[in-house]
Amino acid sequence: MNANSFGKALVLTSFGESHGLGIGGIIDGLPAGLDIDQEFVQSELNRRRPGQSAITSPRNEADTVEFLSGIFEGRSTGAPLAFLVRNNDQRPSDYDALKDVYRPSHADYVYQTKYGIRDHRGGGRSSARETVSRVVGGAIAKLLLKRHGIQVIGYVSAIGTISATVDKSRITHKYVEDSLVRCPVPDWSDKMLNLIEETRLAGDSLGGVVSCVVIGVPAGLGEPVFDKLHADLGKAMLSINAVKGFEYGSGFQAAKMTGSAHNDIFRIEEGKVHTRTNHSGGIQGGISNGEDIYFNVAFKPVATLMKTQDSINTAGHNVIIQPQGRHDVCVVPRAVPIVEAMAALTIADHLLRSKINL
Amino acid sequence: MNANSFGKALVLTSFGESHGLGIGGIIDGLPAGLDIDQEFVQSELNRRRPGQSAITSPRNEADTVEFLSGIFEGRSTGAPLAFLVRNNDQRPSDYDALKDVYRPSHADYVYQTKYGIRDHRGGGRSSARETVSRVVGGAIAKLLLKRHGIQVIGYVSAIGTISATVDKSRITHKYVEDSLVRCPVPDWSDKMLNLIEETRLAGDSLGGVVSCVVIGVPAGLGEPVFDKLHADLGKAMLSINAVKGFEYGSGFQAAKMTGSAHNDIFRIEEGKVHTRTNHSGGIQGGISNGEDIYFNVAFKPVATLMKTQDSINTAGHNVIIQPQGRHDVCVVPRAVPIVEAMAALTIADHLLRSKINL
Amino acid sequence: MNANSFGKALVLTSFGESHGLGIGGIIDGLPAGLDIDQEFVQSELNRRRPGQSAITSPRNEADTVEFLSGIFEGRSTGAPLAFLVRNNDQRPSDYDALKDVYRPSHADYVYQTKYGIRDHRGGGRSSARETVSRVVGGAIAKLLLKRHGIQVIGYVSAIGTISATVDKSRITHKYVEDSLVRCPVPDWSDKMLNLIEETRLAGDSLGGVVSCVVIGVPAGLGEPVFDKLHADLGKAMLSINAVKGFEYGSGFQAAKMTGSAHNDIFRIEEGKVHTRTNHSGGIQGGISNGEDIYFNVAFKPVATLMKTQDSINTAGHNVIIQPQGRHDVCVVPRAVPIVEAMAALTIADHLLRSKINL
Amino acid sequence: MNANSFGKALVLTSFGESHGLGIGGIIDGLPAGLDIDQEFVQSELNRRRPGQSAITSPRNEADTVEFLSGIFEGRSTGAPLAFLVRNNDQRPSDYDALKDVYRPSHADYVYQTKYGIRDHRGGGRSSARETVSRVVGGAIAKLLLKRHGIQVIGYVSAIGTISATVDKSRITHKYVEDSLVRCPVPDWSDKMLNLIEETRLAGDSLGGVVSCVVIGVPAGLGEPVFDKLHADLGKAMLSINAVKGFEYGSGFQAAKMTGSAHNDIFRIEEGKVHTRTNHSGGIQGGISNGEDIYFNVAFKPVATLMKTQDSINTAGHNVIIQPQGRHDVCVVPRAVPIVEAMAALTIADHLLRSKINL
Repeated sequence: MNANSFGKALVLTSFGESHGLGIGGIIDGLPAGLDIDQEFVQSELNRRRPGQSAITSPRNEADTVEFLSGIFEGRSTGAPLAFLVRNNDQRPSDYDALKDVYRPSHADYVYQTKYGIRDHRGGGRSSARETVSRVVGGAIAKLLLKRHGIQVIGYVSAIGTISATVDKSRITHKYVEDSLVRCPVPDWSDKMLNLIEETRLAGDSLGGVVSCVVIGVPAGLGEPVFDKLHADLGKAMLSINAVKGFEYGSGFQAAKMTGSAHNDIFRIEEGKVHTRTNHSGGIQGGISNGEDIYFNVAFKPVATLMKTQDSINTAGHNVIIQPQGRHDVCVVPRAVPIVEAMAALTIADHLLRSKINL
Repeated sequence: MNANSFGKALVLTSFGESHGLGIGGIIDGLPAGLDIDQEFVQSELNRRRPGQSAITSPRNEADTVEFLSGIFEGRSTGAPLAFLVRNNDQRPSDYDALKDVYRPSHADYVYQTKYGIRDHRGGGRSSARETVSRVVGGAIAKLLLKRHGIQVIGYVSAIGTISATVDKSRITHKYVEDSLVRCPVPDWSDKMLNLIEETRLAGDSLGGVVSCVVIGVPAGLGEPVFDKLHADLGKAMLSINAVKGFEYGSGFQAAKMTGSAHNDIFRIEEGKVHTRTNHSGGIQGGISNGEDIYFNVAFKPVATLMKTQDSINTAGHNVIIQPQGRHDVCVVPRAVPIVEAMAALTIADHLLRSKINL
Repeated sequence: MNANSFGKALVLTSFGESHGLGIGGIIDGLPAGLDIDQEFVQSELNRRRPGQSAITSPRNEADTVEFLSGIFEGRSTGAPLAFLVRNNDQRPSDYDALKDVYRPSHADYVYQTKYGIRDHRGGGRSSARETVSRVVGGAIAKLLLKRHGIQVIGYVSAIGTISATVDKSRITHKYVEDSLVRCPVPDWSDKMLNLIEETRLAGDSLGGVVSCVVIGVPAGLGEPVFDKLHADLGKAMLSINAVKGFEYGSGFQAAKMTGSAHNDIFRIEEGKVHTRTNHSGGIQGGISNGEDIYFNVAFKPVATLMKTQDSINTAGHNVIIQPQGRHDVCVVPRAVPIVEAMAALTIADHLLRSKINL
Repeated sequence: MNANSFGKALVLTSFGESHGLGIGGIIDGLPAGLDIDQEFVQSELNRRRPGQSAITSPRNEADTVEFLSGIFEGRSTGAPLAFLVRNNDQRPSDYDALKDVYRPSHADYVYQTKYGIRDHRGGGRSSARETVSRVVGGAIAKLLLKRHGIQVIGYVSAIGTISATVDKSRITHKYVEDSLVRCPVPDWSDKMLNLIEETRLAGDSLGGVVSCVVIGVPAGLGEPVFDKLHADLGKAMLSINAVKGFEYGSGFQAAKMTGSAHNDIFRIEEGKVHTRTNHSGGIQGGISNGEDIYFNVAFKPVATLMKTQDSINTAGHNVIIQPQGRHDVCVVPRAVPIVEAMAALTIADHLLRSKINL
């Protein structure tokens, strides 16, 4: 079944493994005539890339995107866009020791159980390297959204126990990218960096929260029942490796509020409908209302540690896993472009879907 | 597009409005030969029904399910099961005053913007009455799951600011149903009831959290990338009216933990693979690992208040909305069977999908 | 899986059995604001109805369509349209004798093999009564097409060995409906009627060909590769009970022509692009080119005979089937509205899909 | 939308253009553990390749398939299989003269109208070179079918006005491949070759008919209503470039037969259910009955001629098209592996779908 496809009007189908030939995908449903700014796509990939800064995995991947189809004289033709990002820095032998081991809180055991066969090299299909495909798809989606004045900005709002206070209305891509941890407030950013460094020394790992704001979405995107805009956003985010939770607008906090405090009262401003507050997070009844869309995505700590861990092997015997390989202490900063990508794909999908109703 | 369908192998397609003829749906993909226990389906509907207890809306709906197709001599035939639950207690005139008004934090404004036409009677398609279809679909899914030894138990874990402490391993349907608010711990249940009563007197409303445990899911359900089991569960839950957030396993708390504290260490118990802890919530890499699946769903407070509220009308003028109609102070207890239904549909969908791999 | 759904942008999901409660469906994806002319829908159903003329089955079904949702003040709302046509003239006991018998060239044997359970009453889900749902869906699609100036006209071009010569450019609905066999040329119509009468006396049955012209389709509908407009039309037609073949434009005859005779040479007429001939049948490379679309659909003879037939029973023993029940000698005239309905659904689906590209 | 995907359980998504970087695709839903015999896949591609014999286009493509993902130690892993076949012998400048011309009975005009942009080089996405992707997908499907004892054999049954008489029960792959035109009966094969040679000298082109037999399909594949096995086969075939018609079993001939002549009488043979005749073509009520499946596919003559032709250009002026480029007089022999591939994909899709019902 199409388990490797995302979207209904704009469809990304993904392929590839951590230590196979590469990662790629096909984007179907993209309208013709869109300028495909390949430099922009590459710049988005660079934001996701390992080895981009002192705090990320030293795996050294150029991650160069190659478009295989669907572009003619720089523009989309209506035909599917296929792309490939080759794996260069493969070191499958790094993983030989893990061939017969089920690493804790990885997908090793469930893959073996589900498929009866497992590409153990770097997690194979379960590796977060798969998200390369999402970032390319999301970059194309962003090009479409840009034409409609829609902007997606993600940032790190928490790492481990450090939660930043961030004024959503002032965030820019520049503020985010100026921070090594992609937290737009320098003081908080520094605290997060310190925590990451401490944790590295302890051989341990960290999770965190990526927040995201989508600006400029017109009212009317999303569908009333199952394909609510936030339901599709939620699925998009939860499908990213290591994500454990999703909330939009007031989120889990809403559960503690009374209706009179929570309701967003309408008002007319410069002849247009707005709300005084935005607990709705820009979405009411599953459909965008023209206010900013915002949401939070919780990531668990990285499962690979630089410590020994108890585990079992495929024969069911107890084993001790020795630390090895190349890993981030905290992937949350690198998850920002992935969260943005999935948001862009979701919004672009609904933007195209909304045209059918016209 | 199929915005009113849920699932890929087991597909529920839903229809109906709050004050139309009724609510119904079609279930496609159900294997043949399943005993359709119509009394059980009705009992599930009764759990969702308004007017079932002192704390729910006085709308008086018998909510009797009528199956229209797909059953022969009490068993499924492989043909689609269609069903209809007629609306009886319709009072569309109750809503005349709201015809030209956009109620705060309702879907009135977005529907008008999206469609240019709006069935204002009780919210039309945006009404939570739509969930009748989910509960019937979920009941059929539960019958399928039961044959595979899988059980879905939802309960209320928080209402407003009151969060119950619940031992997941001891919950039973009976404990849940014995509580008017569907919180299985009597002390916490009483506190919640008190809060609901206080809030009713104040003309205000409440949100809360529904938690859910799925027991007996075999390892191997779910797909690696976009259709991760928890991503589909998340979409299922977020598609329910008033839901603002979803988390599974350790959820948002995971973001604050270190990897060494969070990792679920494997162990062999009676010859089978288990984990010492279950922060994974029964799902690793998007695929069930055989442990209990558990998750939380946050509901915002009911948007309809028994207080006056500022708003605007369709002409863009300020208006004051007077309280009227029949409404729950807190829908969270009635949301329990809906959460269970969507969980059952999702698990059943993946159960059937997993057969393709055999 | 969604085996009972047709279409991607405009989706008809169908349910019901010959001798169950009724036949119905859900239409999803219909744009809001369309006037739903229920009298027109009923008139289409009447064209399909048994008992409508001397040459059709005496089963007496009122076939009254009841809309269950999706319409407000006479117009579509963007919510799914559900409908139900109740079975009235059920005589399941007519079929008791066939309970354990596999009728030749019916679906009895394959249903039993596939599902292990079978609703034998009138063929259950395999009955052509299922097409009631298609006709209602098609009528709604025709209302949408009409707004875009598109008209679908089907007619009988052959019954048994009698093939009519018909000038496609002169066919009107009136000419078609004036003929009991729905052949628009009176002389041919009379010959067909005589053949049907002869065949009835012999206790035998007939097949035939339904042809169809779609006028006013703009250039640009259809997709380049798998979802070619004629591929979707072909699937639509082949999915109708008793259909054995589909051809469009020059069809099977094209295989015998040379390229120089077959190519449709472009010309400019009144400033617009046209072709001198239309062997393409209005579709080139899978995409409509603005010329009339036309195609032929072959129907096999009715499998139920008013003669004894050899067969086997479910125990594998030889049996002789006695003639019984109520059956058409030739269903081809009644198939005309069904062919039109499936054509209308297909064209409307692609009309909506084409909006995504804008 | 997913216009470039085929299948529901086994999904081929295709990409690529005639003169772009290459042609490829992603196969999703393939069960894990299947031996991927890459030599077999390559041999299937070789059967489709231009330049393979004296009667095919001299375009010289190695057409080497490269698998990009989804295979580990020679077997499928359950992850998507991506593949790429690079275009080598691209001569886009061959097509410069056609840049502003609409070739008769090609897709030039409709692409321009639909998309407003057109990759004119060799037809871009509309080129039959796209079928490379189908052949690779079909080869993988054949590997799956082989494991279930199912074999797909296509052959040429007519070229132009020459229709061969072929005994379906005696066809083998060897007989087919021994013929340059893939007609398994040497006498007919010779006549076809002569006709092709005559037509080449005249600068004209030919169509024809590919027939196909599928042996070993178990009873029970296919779905009752819209996804009838022959409806999906029909769509599969009609989606191939240049196809104008599809018929299965008795096909268009059925329309001329009486029911008593057409009905397939059941009989028991060696304890198994069979039919005396097979007008049903192995499919009853849309579901396979265990007999051989057979069908015919009509191809129009090649639209590119080695003669001058009248046409118009994009400015709407009359032009004369001069013969150029490299083209087959008749593509029907090369269409045989494509027809087989689409049949294999369709049967494999339904084979996997049937598992859900178990």
